[in-house]
Amino acid sequence: MPIRLSQLFLRTLREDPSDADVQGHRLLLRAGYIRRAAPGIYTWLPLGLMVKAKIEKIIREEMAAAGSQEVFFPALLPREPYEVTGRWSEYGDNLFRLQDRKKADYLLAPTHEEVFTLLVKDLYSSYKDLPLCLYQIQNKYRDEARPRAGLLRGREFVMKDAYSFDVSDEGLEVAYQAQRAAYERIFTRLGVEYVIVKADAGAMGGSKSEEFLSPSPIGEDTFVRSAGGYAANVEAVTSVAPAEIDFSTAPAAEVHDSPNTPTIKTLVELANSKVKKYDGSSWSAADTLKNVVLSVASAEGKTEIVIVGIPGDREVDQKRAEAFFGTDQVAQATEEDFAKHKVLVKGYIGPTKAGAQFLGAKTASGIKYLVDPRVVKGSSWVTGANVNEKHVFGLVMGRDFSADGVADIAEVRAGDMAPDGSGELELARGIEIGHVFQLGRKYAEALDLKVLDENGKLVTVTMGSYGIGVTRLVAVLAEANNDDKGLIWPESVSPADVHVVAAGKDDAVYEAAEKLAAEIESTGKTVLLDDRAKVSPGVKFSDAELIGIPTVVIVGKGLETGEVELWNRRTGERAAIKLDSVLSAVK
Amino acid sequence: MPIRLSQLFLRTLREDPSDADVQGHRLLLRAGYIRRAAPGIYTWLPLGLMVKAKIEKIIREEMAAAGSQEVFFPALLPREPYEVTGRWSEYGDNLFRLQDRKKADYLLAPTHEEVFTLLVKDLYSSYKDLPLCLYQIQNKYRDEARPRAGLLRGREFVMKDAYSFDVSDEGLEVAYQAQRAAYERIFTRLGVEYVIVKADAGAMGGSKSEEFLSPSPIGEDTFVRSAGGYAANVEAVTSVAPAEIDFSTAPAAEVHDSPNTPTIKTLVELANSKVKKYDGSSWSAADTLKNVVLSVASAEGKTEIVIVGIPGDREVDQKRAEAFFGTDQVAQATEEDFAKHKVLVKGYIGPTKAGAQFLGAKTASGIKYLVDPRVVKGSSWVTGANVNEKHVFGLVMGRDFSADGVADIAEVRAGDMAPDGSGELELARGIEIGHVFQLGRKYAEALDLKVLDENGKLVTVTMGSYGIGVTRLVAVLAEANNDDKGLIWPESVSPADVHVVAAGKDDAVYEAAEKLAAEIESTGKTVLLDDRAKVSPGVKFSDAELIGIPTVVIVGKGLETGEVELWNRRTGERAAIKLDSVLSAVK
Repeated sequence: MPIRLSQLFLRTLREDPSDADVQGHRLLLRAGYIRRAAPGIYTWLPLGLMVKAKIEKIIREEMAAAGSQEVFFPALLPREPYEVTGRWSEYGDNLFRLQDRKKADYLLAPTHEEVFTLLVKDLYSSYKDLPLCLYQIQNKYRDEARPRAGLLRGREFVMKDAYSFDVSDEGLEVAYQAQRAAYERIFTRLGVEYVIVKADAGAMGGSKSEEFLSPSPIGEDTFVRSAGGYAANVEAVTSVAPAEIDFSTAPAAEVHDSPNTPTIKTLVELANSKVKKYDGSSWSAADTLKNVVLSVASAEGKTEIVIVGIPGDREVDQKRAEAFFGTDQVAQATEEDFAKHKVLVKGYIGPTKAGAQFLGAKTASGIKYLVDPRVVKGSSWVTGANVNEKHVFGLVMGRDFSADGVADIAEVRAGDMAPDGSGELELARGIEIGHVFQLGRKYAEALDLKVLDENGKLVTVTMGSYGIGVTRLVAVLAEANNDDKGLIWPESVSPADVHVVAAGKDDAVYEAAEKLAAEIESTGKTVLLDDRAKVSPGVKFSDAELIGIPTVVIVGKGLETGEVELWNRRTGERAAIKLDSVLSAVK
Repeated sequence: MPIRLSQLFLRTLREDPSDADVQGHRLLLRAGYIRRAAPGIYTWLPLGLMVKAKIEKIIREEMAAAGSQEVFFPALLPREPYEVTGRWSEYGDNLFRLQDRKKADYLLAPTHEEVFTLLVKDLYSSYKDLPLCLYQIQNKYRDEARPRAGLLRGREFVMKDAYSFDVSDEGLEVAYQAQRAAYERIFTRLGVEYVIVKADAGAMGGSKSEEFLSPSPIGEDTFVRSAGGYAANVEAVTSVAPAEIDFSTAPAAEVHDSPNTPTIKTLVELANSKVKKYDGSSWSAADTLKNVVLSVASAEGKTEIVIVGIPGDREVDQKRAEAFFGTDQVAQATEEDFAKHKVLVKGYIGPTKAGAQFLGAKTASGIKYLVDPRVVKGSSWVTGANVNEKHVFGLVMGRDFSADGVADIAEVRAGDMAPDGSGELELARGIEIGHVFQLGRKYAEALDLKVLDENGKLVTVTMGSYGIGVTRLVAVLAEANNDDKGLIWPESVSPADVHVVAAGKDDAVYEAAEKLAAEIESTGKTVLLDDRAKVSPGVKFSDAELIGIPTVVIVGKGLETGEVELWNRRTGERAAIKLDSVLSAVK
């Protein structure tokens, strides 16, 4: 049975909804695929549900092909397991928490590592039971501070999340590669463009991790790639350190007065007006060492002041800093922080004071000091002298100062070199559509998931976690497949295969359209039939463009000569064809 | 591809889980269909998910055949629409409430009338858009005080809920009958026994309503039925009132001392020892009029004292009382209530005092007084005299006292007559598996869902609501289809069509089983293949019995003579058949 527009629960909108911030989302609303129920929370209308179901079907097929078994967890879960792993508090305001009538704490799960781990612990006990890979397609919840772009960042959303369980690291690697390959097949079948980038593990802990990003100007994730094939998200990029420099002939460091130099720019101007550079060139921001004072709070709530020296021509990248410190509680120090650390002379901070090391965990200041990877042995810097209105020039790393370690948290810039030598990096934006991730033993250890190995010894299981944003994919597909007239679905997810439009007033037109729809359906294709009486052909064509089924067949005037029009929604091409060749044409 | 027990995520349990209170639930746990995640909250394991998916598929097919369109609403919904209809507070502790990071109130929806109404209001505006029937299959939440029997009464559960929208009452009746017929087809296809009973609308408001109950001793709903075909739940039964009685010759009422008569039994004993009954027979409990003092709180929180006079041989039925008063806040008056109403002499309450009407909204007491339908004009009663240790005998309704109205809230008993004259009632227990319900205009009025009619006038839409408990059906099916060895699924919902057991150690057995499984699957049937090496035939047979696939094929020793065993799980019948006749046998 075709889907009849005369009966379909649908009302297309001519105007853009006021609250829709991106094109794909606007079109999903206008074409009647979804409706907003609350901020970041959506209702699925019939057409939207069809697209979502097609995506889920493809995911299920590929999950099964990769040997994963489907289960289904509750969305409403008790606090305890999340308390054990620390995520009850780590999630902060992002977690929807509630209490039941007995005042027991519950949450709406944002992700299910804990309960998958406990389920396997509950049922399995031997290495013989493994490997195992389980998945679910399920509603998840995250109380986003700023839900945006419709289904792209919602508060209730559907994810496919899979988890692998293995005894050995090698087993985990096999499971990881199987899921990774399944993801490639899924995104290819869906017709979604994707880039696989090295990812920082971030708040999930663990080790090896890659993200599937769909390149898009509206993406929230910045990633880098080189012409030679390197790709990583910004958190995961390793900066290339220059070679160490022979400092045997470098002049001694000198302290100069530097009043009124609140910024790197003013400092460089002063340097160029006052101090001659030893090689005769001009000072630039890259010659300065900016010492950024950060306040870093651990998940356990301990706050520490850390100073990071980075070249003055770069800023700290917040995401890279969070990834490096393993917490999203990283901030520039406040006046309050400075008040607590009176040894710091704001605007004139540097690693040394009066020729002696001043910053560092083992110095008198006791403040941990890290440097950018570019601050190599022998590199020479203009930096604060820890005295008001004084900077030190020609301060050489490894001769005049040292650091407690390296912090690779400065911004990545287009033109930086890829760490694998594959050329210059370019920056791009993408939407995270999938994530494969070797969790390792973090959750198994926290929740005590052990099995007996071949020797009868208890060993901790190693896990992988693999996610796909199902509802987000609808948004990604809508965003990547549209024009100014409406959506243009890839065939794999289109709510129907063919859109048959009865364009005319004569009964003959409607009868021919009905007959054609039935014939097309008899070949196994699905049809959306615009059988609305008293709706003009113009409105029907506009709706067809908005709804975006890739192949449209118009039954109208040509009928007299046995012809219909075949309309390719993507190319816009319209051609008259004989009625009896429609079936072969839409195949 | 068959489902291989060597790889299936399954661990059957030999022992009954301690927390499982009914047989079907015990078996679902033991056979590895579900696991408990929290009180009333369950995780679906692969086998369970397959059964659930089969039920959902049948429901979807019948919903589509009945012209209903599928949508999908959020589970997490804002407070506002539920505030408008009053259900935010009416649900009391049964509602899971929570706040988001901005302190906005949300709920986990127990049912979706409000948002379906608003969605239709949002998209539709004309009578031409109707009739419309929408449905969803979706996770619902209810914070049950006493979750029980596993999936039977859970706190997170799946429902199919449909809603119809019509302009006219006739349209609603058509939609109602279409859903009712679809329900009959669904339950028939699922192999679930059901009785359709007249239902009280209860907390949902509205008018015509029927429940589909599956008769079961573990059911929470009591219903009545007559041999003549009447069926109703206890809330909906109308008591048959006797004919009015000519009281022209009845003796005058007399007050007698009645010390130490705290119960109806002691009152009857005293009456028989002390007062001669005018017709010479003995007094019985049915001659007494028990005046029950109830405290009734409305949804708005107002509490009122109401007294109901019922024959002394019956008790108030709590569910009937709640249905009658339209609130679940109906309780016997407490000492505190009596302290507030000092005119009431506990144990000696009656409609009259010293020959004058005492109870009633318009009397001096001001207390509303209702009577059972059996208290007809001319009926004569022994009842309290509103004086300590005194009862009045021969008090005649319509002569000596009156009431503010009738309250049909006394218990229904086996042997009572059906209101339609179809004979005596018998009582039975059932599980509610479906509910069809003419909501009428309650929600449309509250949320202002109006459309333009043929004359261009705004008219309020009338709605129906139609629910099926999807996860509950899994429990009902498990409960109705088992024996002491395990589950026995109806073919329509069995996780696989055929269970092939490789019973033996020889490779030839496993190869033959594999081959047979592939052959059966090639006919379109699905197979669960027990290909576990190092598991004894005995364990495999026990697991087959526990898992409950209706048709089992055992590949074992008979192979030498080209034979396998065909095992009917339901009848227990086992017969050797030729390998080459398996395909026709399992068809």
